[in-house]
Amino acid sequence: MLNETAYRPLTPEIAQQLAAIVGEKYLIYNDPENLEAFSHDEIPGFKYRHMPEAAVRPETTEEIVRIMKLANREMIPVTPRGAGSGLSGGAVPVRGGIVILADRMNKILEIDTENMMITVEPGVVSNEINERLKEHGLFYAGYPMSLETCYIGGNVAENAGGGKAVKYGVTSRYVLGLEVVTPTGEVVKLGGKLIKNVTGYDLIQLLVGSEGTLGFFTKIILKLMPLPKAQADLLCLFETIEEAIGLVPRIITETGVVPTSIEFMDQASVITACNYLNETIPYENCGAMLLLTFDGSDMEQVEKDYEAVGKFIEKNQVQEIYVADNPTTSERIWKIRRNIAEAFNLISARQSGEDLVVPPAQIPDLLADFQEIIKKYGILLPCFGHAGDGNIHARIICPPEWNDEKWEAALPEILEDVYRKTVALGGMLSGEHGIGCKRRKYIGRFISEEHLNLLRMIKKSFDPNNIMNPGKVF
Amino acid sequence: MLNETAYRPLTPEIAQQLAAIVGEKYLIYNDPENLEAFSHDEIPGFKYRHMPEAAVRPETTEEIVRIMKLANREMIPVTPRGAGSGLSGGAVPVRGGIVILADRMNKILEIDTENMMITVEPGVVSNEINERLKEHGLFYAGYPMSLETCYIGGNVAENAGGGKAVKYGVTSRYVLGLEVVTPTGEVVKLGGKLIKNVTGYDLIQLLVGSEGTLGFFTKIILKLMPLPKAQADLLCLFETIEEAIGLVPRIITETGVVPTSIEFMDQASVITACNYLNETIPYENCGAMLLLTFDGSDMEQVEKDYEAVGKFIEKNQVQEIYVADNPTTSERIWKIRRNIAEAFNLISARQSGEDLVVPPAQIPDLLADFQEIIKKYGILLPCFGHAGDGNIHARIICPPEWNDEKWEAALPEILEDVYRKTVALGGMLSGEHGIGCKRRKYIGRFISEEHLNLLRMIKKSFDPNNIMNPGKVF
Repeated sequence: MLNETAYRPLTPEIAQQLAAIVGEKYLIYNDPENLEAFSHDEIPGFKYRHMPEAAVRPETTEEIVRIMKLANREMIPVTPRGAGSGLSGGAVPVRGGIVILADRMNKILEIDTENMMITVEPGVVSNEINERLKEHGLFYAGYPMSLETCYIGGNVAENAGGGKAVKYGVTSRYVLGLEVVTPTGEVVKLGGKLIKNVTGYDLIQLLVGSEGTLGFFTKIILKLMPLPKAQADLLCLFETIEEAIGLVPRIITETGVVPTSIEFMDQASVITACNYLNETIPYENCGAMLLLTFDGSDMEQVEKDYEAVGKFIEKNQVQEIYVADNPTTSERIWKIRRNIAEAFNLISARQSGEDLVVPPAQIPDLLADFQEIIKKYGILLPCFGHAGDGNIHARIICPPEWNDEKWEAALPEILEDVYRKTVALGGMLSGEHGIGCKRRKYIGRFISEEHLNLLRMIKKSFDPNNIMNPGKVF
Repeated sequence: MLNETAYRPLTPEIAQQLAAIVGEKYLIYNDPENLEAFSHDEIPGFKYRHMPEAAVRPETTEEIVRIMKLANREMIPVTPRGAGSGLSGGAVPVRGGIVILADRMNKILEIDTENMMITVEPGVVSNEINERLKEHGLFYAGYPMSLETCYIGGNVAENAGGGKAVKYGVTSRYVLGLEVVTPTGEVVKLGGKLIKNVTGYDLIQLLVGSEGTLGFFTKIILKLMPLPKAQADLLCLFETIEEAIGLVPRIITETGVVPTSIEFMDQASVITACNYLNETIPYENCGAMLLLTFDGSDMEQVEKDYEAVGKFIEKNQVQEIYVADNPTTSERIWKIRRNIAEAFNLISARQSGEDLVVPPAQIPDLLADFQEIIKKYGILLPCFGHAGDGNIHARIICPPEWNDEKWEAALPEILEDVYRKTVALGGMLSGEHGIGCKRRKYIGRFISEEHLNLLRMIKKSFDPNNIMNPGKVF
């Protein structure tokens, strides 16, 4: 590992220099009450929290360059932070130092309708992009579940997945250009308004998903698509988890239709989200649901698609299929789906949110393995997520009757089992939430030492002093 | 730059060791006649040629590990080679040493219909993949113009684009897993049968398009899609280049339809390819053509799409639109398109094939700039390519009346003008053919020194002795 012992404290003198860069009112220092908000992300509990020594709210690339040069010279850790809606501790300043907030860099710089591209700053709320694009008949295909709060800069840093990846892929597919300030304070412009580009190694794709460890994005150029004119959802209720999840890998192969979304929610996930939202949907006797979305250029085609898939599902053990072909009903269902994570976060600090990804056809095997683990430990293990991508969010939840000690002792063993089974199915540690500090110590279970060495050397190439978001990924 | 002066000659002793690894009959050494084939790719002329000292034809990953360790220890350059169909000198052993041929690693290892993925060795001919997938109702969306001869390993190394990228994107979108032998002889397995994966930096996307400078791919896992059940082409004839190219950026924005392909061919390109193929199409009075392809799950939808686009084009100055809705006619037209590069290659060694990419809406500006350059120098500058992606292949061709001296003196000036105008439009040096040795000295015109430094450091992380495909990219 790169040396993490040489960091220096953030002295009042350095704080003064930071104030000179961003302006007094955009520095938070010696102010634990206001710094506390930047000590954590959305991971429940207190385990993955750490206070920064200062937070700054720069407005320009030039300010970030100066902050980075200062930090690099003074050996002070720097942690970039978007909306703080992450689930892996990626924005937690685990070594203290400076948190750089993206919230003032929140401008949509250009909507280029001719090239079907948008240029944004990192602090733009993801949802705002599509709100602004509607009138132009365009859309950005990223759809993270936290889209109402998360920032596009965080989406790029984490390579956010989300609800539309079955058809549209994840964030990385849409990032065509980046302006990035490296940990040594250089501004590097990568790509541009270019659909294709092989001029040098693809550093954009290296930076997308690098979890804020290689640089701070100051401008992002995203590819857009024509706004689909029609959309419909199928909400399919099943008696058992097995019946629901067993169909997932067969939907595309047996119908030839690629839905926009293939989402899975077990009963506990639906109930938890509905309680949180004070919402009701008819889940009484249903053990699990699949939520399928279809979109396209006209309703006729969308109908054809969802009818083909609906017919296939009907031939199996489905209890009920509801069609939602109007935006209000669709939004009601999707809101439940989007709020599952937050709803779980609130119920207890004694849980671990996993973000496993396996080959899509192995999704039923993974959930069968989970049943064994549930029996073995007597824990709760509700599941939901982007089943069509092979990406399942599993919540390992402590039974109410366990005390902290028992939970803390059992969790590593449970994770051991969960990860062993995931590896055996050809899976990986994280599909979209990132490794951050939460999963860092487990990455070596999934990728080899030679592989890790390449990551370390790349990190060192960008960040020789290891000041940028240290304590993350590996 | 990494030191390129320390290479050692490939002695008979080392040749013996190579023979011990791959077997006597799979080593070509001291045999200029048979080595000559590996001294060049498809660039016309003799400028970018260099003889290897040996060529080996390994069959297994283990053999490649042993070759690489030997070369790394003995400081002998290693150049990976696919089918040799490249257009940037990527497979040319410009520092001599060993060429590793992929031709015996040509197995389709697995067709996984459940996960809709295929695992192949690097020496599989790209076209064979779809031939084999047909019976499963699946397809791989890569469609490089040399698909009948090129290898999938080369496609991945160059991040090949091709004829279907408007709808389906380029090679990188489909590479989910790689087994790679690094220049130091380590086997690293990246990704897997995973649609999403954020477990560590995305090394797959770093390696895709790295032009054989970071490792030798031994296994490739590709994502597949349901085979479109319907396809049709529109061949649109225009009187002038301006009329044809001017419509390109408007097709998607004004119709909302995303065609599979938006290809451009000027008259000289069509005539050259037709002559080469002894083919005729009605181009007499036509200055340029657009070839648009549409595919989808049924003909009704495809018709709707091409009619919407056809109607839009008809409202402009089109001479004629031909619809090709059967495979025979479609293949006849596409064969012409696919053979333009090869047809040009054969007419003269005094030419330079460019692979410029600009924002799609700037494509008309680029071609207008070319008209100025044509006038200024009195050269020929036929153009064709993937206009919908902003990627134009321009052939700078020496007028027949010029002598070699005049041509050699003029070419750098012409390139200077071409590149200056490309940069001014926000463009890049290569959209899909790669930098190789041909464009290496120009890369600094397009990307900054800080950017280049990051590339150099990444290269050094993978290849500390700079033995892997030296003299390429930067």
